[in-house]
Amino acid sequence: MRSAVLRGGRVLVRDDVPEPAPEMGQVLVEVKACGICGSDLHFAQHGATMLERGREMTGVPEMGGQPLELDRDVFMGHEFSAEVLEAGPDTVAPPAGTLVTSIPAVISLTGIENLAYTNALPAGYSERMLLSAPLVLEVPNGLDARRAALTEPMAVGLHAVNRAEIAAGSGALVLGSGPVGLAVIAALRLRGIEPIVATDFSPARRQLARTMGAHEAVDPAVEPAFEAWSRVDGARSVVVFDAIGVPGIIEDALRQAPPQSRLLVVGVCMEKDAITPFYGIAKELDIRFAFAYDPMEFAATLTSIAEGEIDVGPMITGEVGLEGVPEAFRELANPERHCKILVVPS
Amino acid sequence: MRSAVLRGGRVLVRDDVPEPAPEMGQVLVEVKACGICGSDLHFAQHGATMLERGREMTGVPEMGGQPLELDRDVFMGHEFSAEVLEAGPDTVAPPAGTLVTSIPAVISLTGIENLAYTNALPAGYSERMLLSAPLVLEVPNGLDARRAALTEPMAVGLHAVNRAEIAAGSGALVLGSGPVGLAVIAALRLRGIEPIVATDFSPARRQLARTMGAHEAVDPAVEPAFEAWSRVDGARSVVVFDAIGVPGIIEDALRQAPPQSRLLVVGVCMEKDAITPFYGIAKELDIRFAFAYDPMEFAATLTSIAEGEIDVGPMITGEVGLEGVPEAFRELANPERHCKILVVPS
Repeated sequence: MRSAVLRGGRVLVRDDVPEPAPEMGQVLVEVKACGICGSDLHFAQHGATMLERGREMTGVPEMGGQPLELDRDVFMGHEFSAEVLEAGPDTVAPPAGTLVTSIPAVISLTGIENLAYTNALPAGYSERMLLSAPLVLEVPNGLDARRAALTEPMAVGLHAVNRAEIAAGSGALVLGSGPVGLAVIAALRLRGIEPIVATDFSPARRQLARTMGAHEAVDPAVEPAFEAWSRVDGARSVVVFDAIGVPGIIEDALRQAPPQSRLLVVGVCMEKDAITPFYGIAKELDIRFAFAYDPMEFAATLTSIAEGEIDVGPMITGEVGLEGVPEAFRELANPERHCKILVVPS
Repeated sequence: MRSAVLRGGRVLVRDDVPEPAPEMGQVLVEVKACGICGSDLHFAQHGATMLERGREMTGVPEMGGQPLELDRDVFMGHEFSAEVLEAGPDTVAPPAGTLVTSIPAVISLTGIENLAYTNALPAGYSERMLLSAPLVLEVPNGLDARRAALTEPMAVGLHAVNRAEIAAGSGALVLGSGPVGLAVIAALRLRGIEPIVATDFSPARRQLARTMGAHEAVDPAVEPAFEAWSRVDGARSVVVFDAIGVPGIIEDALRQAPPQSRLLVVGVCMEKDAITPFYGIAKELDIRFAFAYDPMEFAATLTSIAEGEIDVGPMITGEVGLEGVPEAFRELANPERHCKILVVPS
């Protein structure tokens, strides 16, 4: 079958790969749609650095999955919806033809294999892939496959908002209105948070921020983020979401945030970053790092999308086949043209 | 009257200063004991930098106090107990002779004046000072003036532990066993947290850490902090208190802490500090900055000390008169000889 793989750690190519066969506890599915994630672009550029940073850390529990090797083909694509083809032996799964999604992980007797950045198993940029039967969720309410594929990135927003423990009556400032920022905005709006002030240099993304629920969306080149916050909501403490993830954002927030504010770092910054702890101490700030989501948050997000509480349609700005993935990676560098491009393998 | 003041922003000198007179709402007190705080040493070395960092920040509410000028004499000493001499006109206060303490602030119609790092009002390194009648707390239970003076630094520990929202059943790792670290240890122990692992290069401070409640106290030159934590408590997530406050500590903690750990930054680091946000994201860490305490925490700490729940006696390692303050500042650089030196003005 065909798959778009990362080769030599940098180049995406469409190639033929072995057909996956479901073992016990697994389900073979046909991928219907798979979103291209900013992390995928990041990994294609900085994969070696990301692995090195991972090795530097201690205290990270071994998941039991196979170690990733960049000199072998790497499978990517972790924002997918798919149709059930066939369950493995002695495996209870939804009937063939059912539209499903899943957190991007496969459980086996030797551990958990992530369905992203792996040499082991085909992921969402493939015609077919294996899922774990216990993790499979049926897509409810007749939701279409394209919207269902956005469950994963939107769950990232819900998780960040949950991690923020944002109180009713609080407001939020969302720095950056790319897919992660938009997912945060949607989750904040669903929770009734007001005001939500978003920022982005791109007019198209500011428009999307408003569509997804921001009460104001400002161009930080014209009105700096914290000045906008101050104008909209006075000097009240605020929950700030860093959905940009480049050096300097955390320091800016520490310096300018009102006392007792909280900074949720959702954007991944691989580089070293300089902060001034004194700002944090003088104003008693919090920095909370947020990553991914738990299975309950994933399921809740699928429900929110299927029930129409969150309309992800406006975020989908393009669609390509497997052969179009390399070009789509290049296209996504332009925030005016694209938010989320879906890969539709067949 | 006599006071030890900071002159020219760097040198401590004992000099004669005008006698304070209580206005309405104020109480004139005679200082019985006043601890020398690490922040005082820090301010005598880096006062200009601290003021500059303060000016760089935005979003800090104006307290209404008078701006501090380093080229005028600066009053210091914010860890005090004192005896009531005389209340101002139309002011309800404990009778003369009562031993009291207070958060180091004086309320006036124009705002709040901090009783530390101020040109405006004599503070604890003085024979006499003014307190705000509504903020004055009687020292209960016959507690002596020397121990009562440690209410303020111990409240810093209670506040940090409160900010940590440390759950029952969690353990704690306290980096640095100076007065701030010891205050954190005492507050953790009082809350029943176990294990408490403390670190310090100094054998005397490690001994004090055990005395104040640490279950283990390790020399990080022999056994690095997170290795000690791992030995004592496996790879469980941990609440880490940074009571050192020098560059590199936050980064070390982000790199080595188990997933879902929380870092409470209590030590003041004025310099820029480099962190790798990726570590924080990959392990979903929290960094919470803690500063001072609220009046309820201050009062609760006084009660804990007076009731004998926390014995601060072992922390008091020296005593000087006003003329001895400059020498005491030099002495405190040596962690083997001293923890807390009390100034006893009269």
